[in-house]
Amino acid sequence: MRWLEAAARLASRARAQSCPNPAVGCILLKDARPIGRGWTQEGGRPHAEAMALKLVGEGASGATAYVTLEPCAHRSDRGSACADLLVEAGVARVVIGAQDPDPRTAGEGIARLRAAGIEASLLPSPQVENSLAGYFTRARHGRPFVTLKLAMSLDGCIALADGSSQWITGEEARAHVHSRRAMNDAILVGGATWRQDRPRLDVRLDGLQDRSPRRVLLTRGIPPDGVKVINDPAQIAALGDVQYLYVEGGAGAAASFLSADLVDRLEIYRAPILLGKGMPALGDIGLQSLAAAHGRWQNVESRQLGSDSFTAYRRTRQEA
Amino acid sequence: MRWLEAAARLASRARAQSCPNPAVGCILLKDARPIGRGWTQEGGRPHAEAMALKLVGEGASGATAYVTLEPCAHRSDRGSACADLLVEAGVARVVIGAQDPDPRTAGEGIARLRAAGIEASLLPSPQVENSLAGYFTRARHGRPFVTLKLAMSLDGCIALADGSSQWITGEEARAHVHSRRAMNDAILVGGATWRQDRPRLDVRLDGLQDRSPRRVLLTRGIPPDGVKVINDPAQIAALGDVQYLYVEGGAGAAASFLSADLVDRLEIYRAPILLGKGMPALGDIGLQSLAAAHGRWQNVESRQLGSDSFTAYRRTRQEA
Ligand SMILES: NC(=O)c1ccc[n+]([C@@H]2O[C@H](COP(=O)([O-])OP(=O)(O)OC[C@H]3O[C@@H](n4cnc5c(N)ncnc54)[C@H](OP(=O)(O)O)[C@@H]3O)[C@@H](O)[C@H]2O)c1
Ligand SMILES: NC(=O)c1ccc[n+]([C@@H]2O[C@H](COP(=O)([O-])OP(=O)(O)OC[C@H]3O[C@@H](n4cnc5c(N)ncnc54)[C@H](OP(=O)(O)O)[C@@H]3O)[C@@H](O)[C@H]2O)c1
Repeated sequence: MRWLEAAARLASRARAQSCPNPAVGCILLKDARPIGRGWTQEGGRPHAEAMALKLVGEGASGATAYVTLEPCAHRSDRGSACADLLVEAGVARVVIGAQDPDPRTAGEGIARLRAAGIEASLLPSPQVENSLAGYFTRARHGRPFVTLKLAMSLDGCIALADGSSQWITGEEARAHVHSRRAMNDAILVGGATWRQDRPRLDVRLDGLQDRSPRRVLLTRGIPPDGVKVINDPAQIAALGDVQYLYVEGGAGAAASFLSADLVDRLEIYRAPILLGKGMPALGDIGLQSLAAAHGRWQNVESRQLGSDSFTAYRRTRQEA
Repeated sequence: MRWLEAAARLASRARAQSCPNPAVGCILLKDARPIGRGWTQEGGRPHAEAMALKLVGEGASGATAYVTLEPCAHRSDRGSACADLLVEAGVARVVIGAQDPDPRTAGEGIARLRAAGIEASLLPSPQVENSLAGYFTRARHGRPFVTLKLAMSLDGCIALADGSSQWITGEEARAHVHSRRAMNDAILVGGATWRQDRPRLDVRLDGLQDRSPRRVLLTRGIPPDGVKVINDPAQIAALGDVQYLYVEGGAGAAASFLSADLVDRLEIYRAPILLGKGMPALGDIGLQSLAAAHGRWQNVESRQLGSDSFTAYRRTRQEA
């Protein structure tokens, strides 16, 4: 299990880089020592298993492979099936974090390993599940995994009444936002934020500048140049090569996504300030009663960023 | 120092019980062992030192007394001066957490001890300072120490748009509010909350029912029966026998206290729910710019209460 978690951490290096493929991590173990590792490469190929196997060559014989997702069973122009590669390499055992929902592989990857006499087992864990959230959300709901970010005051304002929002949070929180941008394939804002703030929406962190996600605008108006436009939150389903979407506000866009129950994770930055009568963090989300508001969000992460706090919540859903 | 902190904890038993006197704690130590302790009794007498000395009788001779506040130097109908009691008991040393701002004692208590050959020293600490916040705020600003409580959703709403606010937070948070009520001499709400919620504002916790604070209403309207009324936040200065005031909302009352810079501590209960377009936590607090909002509040306590979070902030002021 520990090795699968380590593989899930490896996989996170491929997050927002692996589209259209899932971000997968693989660790090869022999005599209880890691001898090779790999993760999905930019654009989705080579796969994690192929990377790890290539690294160790003949050393893979008799090894155990820990891989976060079921090895693929389908050959493509861009490479052989990983299940076949593992068989050819002569590994003895494969420990798998999750079954692949892709119909070309689902169960077939494991079956092919077993047919070749390899011991293959499934060991699900929240860490692995999390590391594949974008891929699974696409498979289950036909859309990207959506993170909604809100930066607000203690009393829940995202700007003064006149719209000024620079700055509510401090430098550390803003740098954290940039690192989160780099973990998403696309970033979306509402029309009013686009017009008022002219946000650059890029990653301004040393070494990560080339990780700036594509920009998407939610508007019913005329599309500006050089930016992808959708005019309904439901259209995120059609965004090509996006497993992770980062919604950066403002209040109207956030409310539209929440009303449509299209938010999977909330990331709240909170500055120790009071604004009073500022712009509320959210527009109308169509709530009918207090009772209906409960039981939807679970705190999954809390930390301090300078004098601001950061808290993340997951939407609690019964997954298929 | 450790003993002064312990004495400060003892003093907290007298909080919201000791008016018109400060809530003081005292520990007597002999051969590095605590032999007696005391805290201010209900109504302010006997004082902490008198309680501790009575407990140990002749054993006090040669002992060290740790006392959070300078022993009083003024005789009253209700008892002798504690400085004299300590001299008579023959203690060898007195360690004091803070000077008494009361002009009848200020410096005179320490002077009297020293005149009698007792080693008397002042050892200030944040813990002791905190334990005397109500008394010091009265002495420095001529008003009670004000705690503003807000129970809100993640997006900063204290009620739905229609005013319903039962319940935003869960049972553990509400029980915590009751325990906080018991730590205050008086509790205040605004006129609208009084009319809409008819709050009982009492302490419904086993064993603490008799610790329900007095109720105060902020209104410009006709005073209802059986409740103290003020019609401007500044009038809290005239509330007799109130060192600690707990302001429970709503948004209008809270904003009035904040606008007048009359809040010393914020206590925020946050439920993991989103309301969107509900009632904002605060009305207008007269803020002119984002910059002016910063540097006023410091996080001093955070904890989880069931699925809700509790965070407290202190107003950062340069004290006299
Ligand atoms: N603190 C923060 O985290 C943060 C983040 C971002 C923004 N802000 C602040 O928030 C303010 C802007 O917020 P806002 O609520 O006014 O605007 P907004 O959410 O940025 O934009 C609202 C606009 O988004 C489009 N939109 C929303 N829902 C839609 C739907 N269901 N279908 C199609 N289009 C939809 C519409 O665009 P069109 O009008 O173009 O049709 C709508 O007018 C600014 O002051 C900004 O500084 C703060
Ligand atoms: N979640 C929570 O922690 C919480 C706590 C309390 C209340 N609530 C909710 O908050 C809502 C009520 O809030 P609200 O903002 O409408 O009302 P509110 O703050 O309870 O009361 C406002 C009233 O307070 C009086 N007032 C305010 N400032 C004053 C000043 N400077 N001088 C004199 N009087 C002043 C006035 O009373 P008059 O009109 O009588 O003159 C004013 O109308 C209710 O829905 C309640 O359920 C929530």
